[in-house]
Amino acid sequence: MTAAMFDYAPLFKPGLPAPAAKWTGLAKYNFVGGNNDADQVPVEGLMAAAASVLKREGHTLATYGLANGPQGYVPLREFLTTKLKRDAGIACAAADILITSGSLQAIDLVNGVFLARGDTAIIEQECYQGSINRLNRLGVNVIGIPLDCDGMRMDALSSALDDLKRRGVRAKYIYTIPTVHNPTGSIMPQARRAELLKLSQAHGVPVFEDDCYADLLWDGQRPPALYAMSEHGGVVHVGSFSKSIAPALRVGYIVAGWDILSRALAIKTDAGSGALEQMVLAEYCAPHFAAHVTALSRGLRVKLDTLMEALAEQFGTAAEFEEPKGGIFLWVKLPDTVDTLKLYQSALRAGVAINPGPEWSVDAAHSKSRMRLCFASPTVEEIRDGIAALAEVCRTEFGVPLRSANVMRAAGRL
Amino acid sequence: MTAAMFDYAPLFKPGLPAPAAKWTGLAKYNFVGGNNDADQVPVEGLMAAAASVLKREGHTLATYGLANGPQGYVPLREFLTTKLKRDAGIACAAADILITSGSLQAIDLVNGVFLARGDTAIIEQECYQGSINRLNRLGVNVIGIPLDCDGMRMDALSSALDDLKRRGVRAKYIYTIPTVHNPTGSIMPQARRAELLKLSQAHGVPVFEDDCYADLLWDGQRPPALYAMSEHGGVVHVGSFSKSIAPALRVGYIVAGWDILSRALAIKTDAGSGALEQMVLAEYCAPHFAAHVTALSRGLRVKLDTLMEALAEQFGTAAEFEEPKGGIFLWVKLPDTVDTLKLYQSALRAGVAINPGPEWSVDAAHSKSRMRLCFASPTVEEIRDGIAALAEVCRTEFGVPLRSANVMRAAGRL
Repeated sequence: MTAAMFDYAPLFKPGLPAPAAKWTGLAKYNFVGGNNDADQVPVEGLMAAAASVLKREGHTLATYGLANGPQGYVPLREFLTTKLKRDAGIACAAADILITSGSLQAIDLVNGVFLARGDTAIIEQECYQGSINRLNRLGVNVIGIPLDCDGMRMDALSSALDDLKRRGVRAKYIYTIPTVHNPTGSIMPQARRAELLKLSQAHGVPVFEDDCYADLLWDGQRPPALYAMSEHGGVVHVGSFSKSIAPALRVGYIVAGWDILSRALAIKTDAGSGALEQMVLAEYCAPHFAAHVTALSRGLRVKLDTLMEALAEQFGTAAEFEEPKGGIFLWVKLPDTVDTLKLYQSALRAGVAINPGPEWSVDAAHSKSRMRLCFASPTVEEIRDGIAALAEVCRTEFGVPLRSANVMRAAGRL
Repeated sequence: MTAAMFDYAPLFKPGLPAPAAKWTGLAKYNFVGGNNDADQVPVEGLMAAAASVLKREGHTLATYGLANGPQGYVPLREFLTTKLKRDAGIACAAADILITSGSLQAIDLVNGVFLARGDTAIIEQECYQGSINRLNRLGVNVIGIPLDCDGMRMDALSSALDDLKRRGVRAKYIYTIPTVHNPTGSIMPQARRAELLKLSQAHGVPVFEDDCYADLLWDGQRPPALYAMSEHGGVVHVGSFSKSIAPALRVGYIVAGWDILSRALAIKTDAGSGALEQMVLAEYCAPHFAAHVTALSRGLRVKLDTLMEALAEQFGTAAEFEEPKGGIFLWVKLPDTVDTLKLYQSALRAGVAINPGPEWSVDAAHSKSRMRLCFASPTVEEIRDGIAALAEVCRTEFGVPLRSANVMRAAGRL
């Protein structure tokens, strides 16, 4: 190629997001991303599943969607009907499920069905970053509802809905992660779910239920899904295999009525989601899912305990948190003097990756000194060493935690 | 659920496409869709590949993108650099490749980087339906360039570019399928490729090269890719494994400079494309791709010959076509009295699915009596029986082919 290279700049679509930076690898102590425990990927089971399903049905890969139609591989949808009934109380048929390329595509499709620029959406004040970013890019007005230890506060939701009604605005949906909330790890109790459904119905605003962390529970217990409890159908439910099996597999799903699915299908112009991943998951999950998730959750609980101990040792009272009910992340409050956006930058230079609070919240002030720590991927040694390194960075930059406090606490444990 | 179901209708985004119809299965004689030959899916090879790559690297599925970064599994990108060099003359590095969820996502990302409502794009007059539909949905002005047996006509392209220049319009790209064109099956000769690149450079309009059928060649020969021939870099290249291995696997790719890839990555918010399909493809293709594609093409050629014979027998001179240079489809001209949009409806009722010409063209008059027939998926028996059934429908509805003509021809073959 010559020096006079083609200049694309004048041709790019206006308003594109900033170009991606070149990927430089993962941090040494990686407390970000929904990654899972490498030792707990059921490799032997997936190998056996791949062998048996390919041997039996491999030739069907010659046809788009395995000739199972655009909603996805039928045995995977049938497995989901069983799993959703058992775990979430959802009575649905395979025809009510659309398999997607991860729950991110599910969110994109639901957004694509409902949201136009200038619309209003209600979310939890602290919320999955990917959902917040999507709403911002779509130019949607986002209303964040404050949380308590049981999830979205119904008094605040009721006020917000009343306020919108006064202004003549009908929100497009109420997005919630009710079962192992991201980032707080709370589970909304059944009574509050009923309240939420009542408000949804009264205001004609549907619920968008994101249940993608709901398989990872310390005690295996959860209330029924909002989708299951609704008597009027105004709930769209999405889920994923990323947290229960492996995130690099991109398989999620939408459970909804045909009025929603027929419109989601009309904008799902990808000729189907990856079939091999669907086939292997169906073959593996039908016999093994429940036992795998129980064992996986037990292992994750050990890592959470390690993380909470390490925070107590290294940060002392400077790190406050509610113990999550399941999942892969801990939402931590540091002293008000700490700005986690700055801490994030300094920590990254020291090899520690954290999620700064403001990226997981629509309330900048509330989240300024908070951070999300994902504990599934690092080993217990990496958790201990990484939190020690993070405390050192935080102390250098913000003067907390005090050295004496945590040395005393550590000594107390000997 | 009660009778008073939630009414979503007032909440849907305005301007959605028509809701999807419920899927009712494939036609008995299925001459549509980019499906492949079920007998030629390399099932044993894929099984072996799945076993070896999962055993060696299965635990990496615990990390999004296998910790290979957002551009995709490195061994797959490395295989592609070798294949693209050997087959298409493209010298590129793994860093110049972005793995996508099928070439449809690749097209969506390139469109997302360049196209805003009201923009202008140049395409071939007859063109892949998925590309035409995407441009229409994006509200882009489409200029179709007529074809001859060597692909896009350069005199017509030159006139169109001059005309745009006079009107002060700079098109965003020239989209072309130069190597086994869809639907005509032509291959653009090297000299014409050079002309195309000269016009592209002179007018500052980049080339969007869709090479997704280019692996299926009767004689294994093809000119270098436009991407390889360009001396100024103004080419974005996309490809796919759908036609060479299996369409139900959703793995495609973009080859482009970092100026393009960094912007495509910024709007690829799917947390990576499916990793298992990438892993299995890399493991299978590195040793087996070339031999597989040679054998596959040989089998497809037999099916094409069967289709051309069946058309000659059943339609006689009423079906005209140029023999394609490779691929999986034949572009057929029927007598002017035939409206293939009507034929499509009647044929479907008789169990025969065809692609009516107007769905694969931006010139309604030129394509009215043309149709695309895909021959990779049906068996040779289904090809013969399906074309006989199609001829019967066409005769009943349009009076052609005449019965005497084809009976005479058939008799002549005994």
